[in-house]
Amino acid sequence: MSFYRAISALLLIAASTGGISVNAQKKVHQYVDPMIGSEGLGRVFIGPSYPFGMIKPSPDCTSSPNSGWLPDPNPVTGFSQVHVSGTGGGPKYGNIQIMPFVGALNKTEQSSMRENEHAALGYYGVTLKKDHIKAEITAAERAAIYRFTYPKKAQKALKIDAGFFLGEQPEPDAREAQQFVGSEIEIVSANEVRGYSRIRGGWNNGAAYTVFFDAVFDSPVTAYTTWKGEKLYPGKKQQFDSGEKTGVLLAFKSSLSDTLKVKIGISFISELKAKENIDQEISHWSFERVLSGVQNKWDALLSRIEINDDATLEQKTLFYTGLYHTMLMPADRTGENPLWTVDKPYYDDFYAIWDTFRSSNPLITLISPKRETEIVNALLNIYKHDGYMPDSRSGNYNGRTQGGSNAEVLIADAYVKKLPGIDYNLALEAMLKDATVPPGGNEEKEGRGGLTDYNKLGYVSYDFVRSGNRTLDYAYDDYCIAIVAKGLGKEKIYQRFIKQADNWRNLWRDDYKDHGATGFIMPKDAAGHWLDNIAYGEANNQHPTFKYTPLTREFPWYVCHWCAFFYEATSWEYSLSIPHQVPVVIAKSGGKEAFRRRLDTLFDNKYYNVANEPSFLTPCLYHWIGRPDLSSKRIRQIIAQNYNISHFGLPGNDDSGAMSSWLAFQMMGLYPNAGQSYYLINSPLLKQSILHQESGKDFKITAKNLTDKNIYIKSATLNGKPLNQAWIEHDDVIKGGELQLEMDDKPSAWGTEILPPVKY
Amino acid sequence: MSFYRAISALLLIAASTGGISVNAQKKVHQYVDPMIGSEGLGRVFIGPSYPFGMIKPSPDCTSSPNSGWLPDPNPVTGFSQVHVSGTGGGPKYGNIQIMPFVGALNKTEQSSMRENEHAALGYYGVTLKKDHIKAEITAAERAAIYRFTYPKKAQKALKIDAGFFLGEQPEPDAREAQQFVGSEIEIVSANEVRGYSRIRGGWNNGAAYTVFFDAVFDSPVTAYTTWKGEKLYPGKKQQFDSGEKTGVLLAFKSSLSDTLKVKIGISFISELKAKENIDQEISHWSFERVLSGVQNKWDALLSRIEINDDATLEQKTLFYTGLYHTMLMPADRTGENPLWTVDKPYYDDFYAIWDTFRSSNPLITLISPKRETEIVNALLNIYKHDGYMPDSRSGNYNGRTQGGSNAEVLIADAYVKKLPGIDYNLALEAMLKDATVPPGGNEEKEGRGGLTDYNKLGYVSYDFVRSGNRTLDYAYDDYCIAIVAKGLGKEKIYQRFIKQADNWRNLWRDDYKDHGATGFIMPKDAAGHWLDNIAYGEANNQHPTFKYTPLTREFPWYVCHWCAFFYEATSWEYSLSIPHQVPVVIAKSGGKEAFRRRLDTLFDNKYYNVANEPSFLTPCLYHWIGRPDLSSKRIRQIIAQNYNISHFGLPGNDDSGAMSSWLAFQMMGLYPNAGQSYYLINSPLLKQSILHQESGKDFKITAKNLTDKNIYIKSATLNGKPLNQAWIEHDDVIKGGELQLEMDDKPSAWGTEILPPVKY
Repeated sequence: MSFYRAISALLLIAASTGGISVNAQKKVHQYVDPMIGSEGLGRVFIGPSYPFGMIKPSPDCTSSPNSGWLPDPNPVTGFSQVHVSGTGGGPKYGNIQIMPFVGALNKTEQSSMRENEHAALGYYGVTLKKDHIKAEITAAERAAIYRFTYPKKAQKALKIDAGFFLGEQPEPDAREAQQFVGSEIEIVSANEVRGYSRIRGGWNNGAAYTVFFDAVFDSPVTAYTTWKGEKLYPGKKQQFDSGEKTGVLLAFKSSLSDTLKVKIGISFISELKAKENIDQEISHWSFERVLSGVQNKWDALLSRIEINDDATLEQKTLFYTGLYHTMLMPADRTGENPLWTVDKPYYDDFYAIWDTFRSSNPLITLISPKRETEIVNALLNIYKHDGYMPDSRSGNYNGRTQGGSNAEVLIADAYVKKLPGIDYNLALEAMLKDATVPPGGNEEKEGRGGLTDYNKLGYVSYDFVRSGNRTLDYAYDDYCIAIVAKGLGKEKIYQRFIKQADNWRNLWRDDYKDHGATGFIMPKDAAGHWLDNIAYGEANNQHPTFKYTPLTREFPWYVCHWCAFFYEATSWEYSLSIPHQVPVVIAKSGGKEAFRRRLDTLFDNKYYNVANEPSFLTPCLYHWIGRPDLSSKRIRQIIAQNYNISHFGLPGNDDSGAMSSWLAFQMMGLYPNAGQSYYLINSPLLKQSILHQESGKDFKITAKNLTDKNIYIKSATLNGKPLNQAWIEHDDVIKGGELQLEMDDKPSAWGTEILPPVKY
Repeated sequence: MSFYRAISALLLIAASTGGISVNAQKKVHQYVDPMIGSEGLGRVFIGPSYPFGMIKPSPDCTSSPNSGWLPDPNPVTGFSQVHVSGTGGGPKYGNIQIMPFVGALNKTEQSSMRENEHAALGYYGVTLKKDHIKAEITAAERAAIYRFTYPKKAQKALKIDAGFFLGEQPEPDAREAQQFVGSEIEIVSANEVRGYSRIRGGWNNGAAYTVFFDAVFDSPVTAYTTWKGEKLYPGKKQQFDSGEKTGVLLAFKSSLSDTLKVKIGISFISELKAKENIDQEISHWSFERVLSGVQNKWDALLSRIEINDDATLEQKTLFYTGLYHTMLMPADRTGENPLWTVDKPYYDDFYAIWDTFRSSNPLITLISPKRETEIVNALLNIYKHDGYMPDSRSGNYNGRTQGGSNAEVLIADAYVKKLPGIDYNLALEAMLKDATVPPGGNEEKEGRGGLTDYNKLGYVSYDFVRSGNRTLDYAYDDYCIAIVAKGLGKEKIYQRFIKQADNWRNLWRDDYKDHGATGFIMPKDAAGHWLDNIAYGEANNQHPTFKYTPLTREFPWYVCHWCAFFYEATSWEYSLSIPHQVPVVIAKSGGKEAFRRRLDTLFDNKYYNVANEPSFLTPCLYHWIGRPDLSSKRIRQIIAQNYNISHFGLPGNDDSGAMSSWLAFQMMGLYPNAGQSYYLINSPLLKQSILHQESGKDFKITAKNLTDKNIYIKSATLNGKPLNQAWIEHDDVIKGGELQLEMDDKPSAWGTEILPPVKY
């Protein structure tokens, strides 16, 4: 019996006997706080959403921020149906915006200040102060339901804006800005309005995508005014697409009720499909039923990891919100692909795999390997039809790359963790495309920019932007190709790529010293000369140069942050981001002791930033010098300094849940090295976590005697047998069993002798 | 006063006075026979169409041929709304198929044999034998009207199939085959049905495109059965898009009339836009009004070139049908671009510029320079948004290339002919993109495949498919870049590209002899070795080789015809296809006399094929050795052997009018060297042609004493002054004036001294 079914059975018993267990009193979804990370850098989506849900309705408080939402005192301009979570750079989506108001249908601007804002898992509520309307939203997978409560006897009205989108800018074709293409609106009957919004561009510079919608009302429309461009058309039912913005203002019949309920279905296929999505998912008018639907769906998923009952509320909130954030994206759009039809899963909004491959995808693999299989298969299907797997993809369009072709890591991770149902030969073909065929024209879209350089020189020269992290990423991606090739018995391919996995060394400047550390990834030109001073990006025609050091982070104002040597982070961080050859980095840094000092300098001097994904593994590097106690110490420091349950509780853009998944792993005491089959063991923050696997087998992690002081692992057993190494294999997890850690208040000899594996 | 306005005025006078001039008795559109080139290789579109019209309704007599139509005894499966003209390779379009029938709404298959088929400009009519229904079609630009005449008292019925398309094949993703993505159908009211068809792939391997439609009827629907997949749904109004084929069978009210009229609007934007297209273009129910609309539109355009009244009917038919075929494509889709919105012209179905740049576009430039300006601006707009200008484009998607990036020629041609309203600096940027940035992943889509080779070695090596004609095309494209750069004062760019214009010489094998000729374009490997024996395409792993000679045309069965050294034609033809350096080719061939022998061998031995566009200029090459009489002789032979007014009257795929425009030019006695500013003068087939230019200025070409025997030019005058050269400048044409040729029955000294220019 699965955990979910067990819980259901338990609740049934509880309900029938009148008895209520402690577990049943508070469901796990109630520990999720969608507002964590909503302010500051986090930029998480705060509205209701299914796991990997397609519709993501949320208030828009400006046209610019990525999630749409901003804190008070910014006005709410309306509620649009599609958003992404935790992203940086230019916005995407914000389509089909609706807004309730009171009074005459004579203006399209209906912004309002707000009060009593409340977001919970699956629920968003707010009072719009302008017209004293309470707005509530909950969502199914592809359809949402809104409940608007108007003041008594007020003239209930609603705006549907098919022309709105996030990030509109006055300049045509401004980089990273979405651009309007077209929209349409049609009043189909007294209870139904349809239309679409067609937008191009945005963060990934995508081709046009179309969000179709169907909206139905529980009360008949009594009057309507459509608009096109600036002009209002009272009583006109249709506004065809002439490349201008369209929308409608609707008035509703006064009735006994002061509420108006609106169901909105969206689709990337058609208006009738949007209608079908409503019919399939919300065939009734009960707001509460939809709400319990989304809660139950999340409960089933979140409770796959059960943590100790006596965890603090803060711990529960941090942990389950972390899991929640991890599973908001990519969006499951199976059956909603307007580009091709196949009987295969389709996911969109990979945003970006560069961000998520390290911890988000491995966490999904633990919670729902079937889901991760679907995600990998979606990548392969995109490869088959679009020519390349994406590193990012949004609005049905690949783009853009930040560094590597990191789908390779997802595939290797799936392969070494033995996910079934994936055509690994096809996957190898897709990876080889990345590694051998330059993407051409737009080197930011997919594949590997600077590939000709990389394949000729063994590194990407400074002729190309982001040559530092491209080289590092490609080397690790090549390692991933090698591992899969080897497993498939393709010896020649293995030999080539395992050799290329060393390519990071071609940018490793052995003799370079900085703040006591030796050896750094540094820029090199195509002729093989190290560059102490570098010309920056697009300013080449002026030939200004700047001294480049391993701490260089700031670039002159005229250099786009995409055009530097590294994307995010410094050489101090990147030089340690070689996940397949940590012992080589240690040796090149001068050995274990020098490496420890290097790590200490990194952390003590605050050269480290957990908000940069390439640094995710770094605090665990102490493991490779036999000091897992130091890994645990640093991780605790990082969490304490960077994570909390406030609106500002995330250290950087959540990046589709990357920050959150890092935290969730660390709280359990495990951390993956994505693309490889093991997990490093750290001191958990939780006394116990039980992974109720899809297979039905449980894997339990217990930290005996864990207290605020007892933060060091003294000893460990796996299924009762002593475990003297600070890592376990994925196989150990999937077999089920228990990892028991005995905690103490001082570092011990545990885990100091058998170092984490390096697999070739 | 323009010719059009003059004609209108004339007709007005004629009408008011009761007098009818000879010209007014038969309008020029009546000389157009859409069936010329419909059988055999021509593959022209035979249905009604506006000039550059978006809707192209036509019967489909199989799912495979490019134009949809096939001669009897193939059944008609229905009438679909979008087709292309004269294309080879895999099909494209064939969307939204309708079919009238009689009886019960119980099956979707309604094919019928036919009789009394008749096609005229703007009109198609046929009797469907199965149910004795007469079907007639005429079209506006984006909407068509059908008139179906049923047997008396029959149960009038109509099928609308949103799932049909040309070229369906059982294998998924078969190369060049269209693939189904989705469709939708909805009965909106008793008089209206809407829906769409979404298809991907086809000849250019394009991404999905959507053809939306709106259909209205002059009689109410009394019963309907929709379908999805194999299943019929009587009385069900909507079939949403679930990735299956949908359609509807409709029954209509019996009324006094036996006819049913159906108006169909299409759109690449939306269903409401399709409806708007009907409303804008066919706001009434008069079949005749629509028919005269399309006839008048063509009359205005075709009569821009007025030919001598006493030309034979065959001459008139050949000439005006030639003009007509030239202006069926590309499709003017301004305001119908689903990818971006700008206040700029948008054209689709460039299919391919490789085919049309030589004669079709130059002919359009003469007839309507404004139209050619729009076409060039559309290319630039595509470059701005999609990254590259297309060589081919269909279904809003670039692809594929046959050889060069020949938009360069269109731009140079516009530039040297001084077309106003084009941003030539932007055009230079777009051309430089082609010439410097490899297109990447899919080298068949756009830009220049094998570019790294070309830019490194100065030729495309045999490592790449089509390395022969790619090298030749790129060299000429580079010449075009050089000419524009020079004109814009970009000296450095000019120097680079004028040098690259010599690159064809790197594949010219000086000492190679064949059938008495010396020097041929031959394959070379990347190391610089000539290849006498070549490994063919995809069979490289078997290492079979074949002797390659300048006459090699047939390739082993397993080599795709895209994968050979040349695309279409042999080295005998291609080696003479160096339009910017004819004198060099002459010198390299051994001088004038040797070159004459070479040309004679080419024509006499039938190594020449006018159906291959690279050979279009070849018969004029005698001009460069001072023998324009031989050019004229050969051209007359070619026309006599290859062109006639039968259904088989075109020598090869018409290729969007390429074959037809070549003929029209030659009939007037002019032939352009596209990308350069002059026209070669040949013996006309017509005694007189007057170009009534958009500017209002007339340019007249007269052949005095032209008879079947007097086919040689004895002397010429331009505006009364002796002209001793066998070419004129475009400037001479646009200034207006008269070119008078005096004909004789033997070759003369005319044109033998001053050879055609070579401009650098």
